Amino acid sequence: MAATVTASLDVMGGDKGPAVVLPGAERALRRLPGLRFRLYGDEAVVRPLLDRHPELRDVSTFEHCEISVRMDDKPSQALRRGRWRSSMWRAIDAVKSADATFAVSAGNTGALMAMSKFCLRSPAGIDRPAIAGIWPTLRGESVVLDCGASIGAGATTLFEFAVMGAAMARALHGKAKPTVGLLNIGVEEIKGLDEIKNAGQMLRDAALPDLDYIGFVEADDIGKGKADVVVTEGFAGNIALKAAEGTARQISSYLREAVNTSLLARIGFLIASGAFRRLRQAMDTRRANGGVFLGLNGIVIKSHGGTDAEGFAAAIEIGHSIASSRILDEINADLAAYRPLEGALREAKTGAM
Amino acid sequence: MAATVTASLDVMGGDKGPAVVLPGAERALRRLPGLRFRLYGDEAVVRPLLDRHPELRDVSTFEHCEISVRMDDKPSQALRRGRWRSSMWRAIDAVKSADATFAVSAGNTGALMAMSKFCLRSPAGIDRPAIAGIWPTLRGESVVLDCGASIGAGATTLFEFAVMGAAMARALHGKAKPTVGLLNIGVEEIKGLDEIKNAGQMLRDAALPDLDYIGFVEADDIGKGKADVVVTEGFAGNIALKAAEGTARQISSYLREAVNTSLLARIGFLIASGAFRRLRQAMDTRRANGGVFLGLNGIVIKSHGGTDAEGFAAAIEIGHSIASSRILDEINADLAAYRPLEGALREAKTGAM
Repeated sequence: MAATVTASLDVMGGDKGPAVVLPGAERALRRLPGLRFRLYGDEAVVRPLLDRHPELRDVSTFEHCEISVRMDDKPSQALRRGRWRSSMWRAIDAVKSADATFAVSAGNTGALMAMSKFCLRSPAGIDRPAIAGIWPTLRGESVVLDCGASIGAGATTLFEFAVMGAAMARALHGKAKPTVGLLNIGVEEIKGLDEIKNAGQMLRDAALPDLDYIGFVEADDIGKGKADVVVTEGFAGNIALKAAEGTARQISSYLREAVNTSLLARIGFLIASGAFRRLRQAMDTRRANGGVFLGLNGIVIKSHGGTDAEGFAAAIEIGHSIASSRILDEINADLAAYRPLEGALREAKTGAM
Repeated sequence: MAATVTASLDVMGGDKGPAVVLPGAERALRRLPGLRFRLYGDEAVVRPLLDRHPELRDVSTFEHCEISVRMDDKPSQALRRGRWRSSMWRAIDAVKSADATFAVSAGNTGALMAMSKFCLRSPAGIDRPAIAGIWPTLRGESVVLDCGASIGAGATTLFEFAVMGAAMARALHGKAKPTVGLLNIGVEEIKGLDEIKNAGQMLRDAALPDLDYIGFVEADDIGKGKADVVVTEGFAGNIALKAAEGTARQISSYLREAVNTSLLARIGFLIASGAFRRLRQAMDTRRANGGVFLGLNGIVIKSHGGTDAEGFAAAIEIGHSIASSRILDEINADLAAYRPLEGALREAKTGAM
């Protein structure tokens, strides 16, 4: 059997805090009975609720934290107020001290990233962390990164994102040699962002054995599942993710309207409800509820702030899959294998310009 | 009555060329009986087809062009091969010579933009053209620009895009004072792209009477219709548009699957077919089938290459609405009103840094 996997949870994070985190953790526990928890939060709120989840309580430690990071705290504020003492910080710090295998928080993204960077830091050789999102596609799920950890990225950073994303696809989706595409736009003449082109060249030159670089993909290729991993800088990645989420919600709203148009419509949709349920499942974003912070000395999972217990459980399961893999070692190995090449390449390129 | 409006059409453009363009034009003509056409294309192909559309033929001139720009021509290739002589060029050139009020082509976007820039040029005071897309929202339609004419944009260019987009929303959607948002990403600390911030400041300072600047919007706000006009540089705009289109197609595909799951499902959806039809209408991208090239001395409409006759007719109707307005004059007036302010602002800003 594998070693015990322990999740550290920021119980106060998210729109509903413990009311979602605790039942979410209990659901995850039922599906992953070996899982253990370290819970961080405000004792007065968490203790009474925890007593209603004895299964969870029995496999958890709990520590009181006097500060809860607010959803609208700016990252710098959150760091100032909440370093060392907040439930968010403590959950991350448990990963650093190896008391936990991974941390999960539904708290605010900017604060969580700022604290994760400050507490865990990036391993030598990784330029900066990325937020990897899980994108439901017609062929399963793809990894898209960076979804907004930072803005802009040079070729080397994009290359590192590709390596990290591929490691995540191997860990999470069991793909031995995931396909990787660089996000670009289609019009020929402006298909010319140098950083993206150069990152493509680096990926081709590196010819890593555990990653299959397939070239440029456009944003409408993501949903088709054309690449297992889609790499871009954080501004475009965030825009792509939000545009897709917005469109899915927009169509759900048309669908709800359609169902409620008339009695006949309601009857029809009732008869078709089995098929309809499968449609809803396909569109259920909770299954993909986890932004994974990659490029740090430890695994931190960001759950959507507005998710429910099922969504939070999914975020824990994502953390469990990734933490059970050797993802950090694999990323380091891939980057180390490439490094000797990198200097030579850079010289060759400068010479050619 | 208004003066005659004449559309010049690149009959060879698009995946199906005349087989879509001619019936599309005839549909548009039935809805806009005053419209006249100038048709450009390969005589051997177009003439026989045109004879099958006598209504259209009777209100059109036709000119033979020996070159058709191919869908996979690079913009530079298309310019080299097709300048002066291609159906695409001739349609644009008819706008320049005032023989037509606007041009429509379903041909390749890069080539169409390159030729439009070369032939029509930008008016003095406009940095560069933009492709404005029409985005169906829960509240109607919004204008999103730039959807990929160029990559990157400084504050002044974003400001110009805002002015141009607002003029288009007034012309197309009859909004007297459209709301305008700048596309950004949400995480507080990196909400910091200087160009976007400065463009926001310029829009606030300008306080234009026919444009209501409402601040930053995120990509999932577009589908909600939060702003009538959403402004961004072309890389992010193209990614947003394609991500949304991809998601809509993905969900359509789930929906088709759901309908065909079982006999019961088919019966149910049949009973609900009235409501279902409305859903399909709401999701029908053909109604919004027109990328409008703004920032040129003339109006050029890009129709989707893969559209059908109904979609092409919609592109013509979009051109008709815009060409019937005084959009170019309004854009010039708004930019002229702002210009005296601009220098002062720039100085103030440089001083503050």
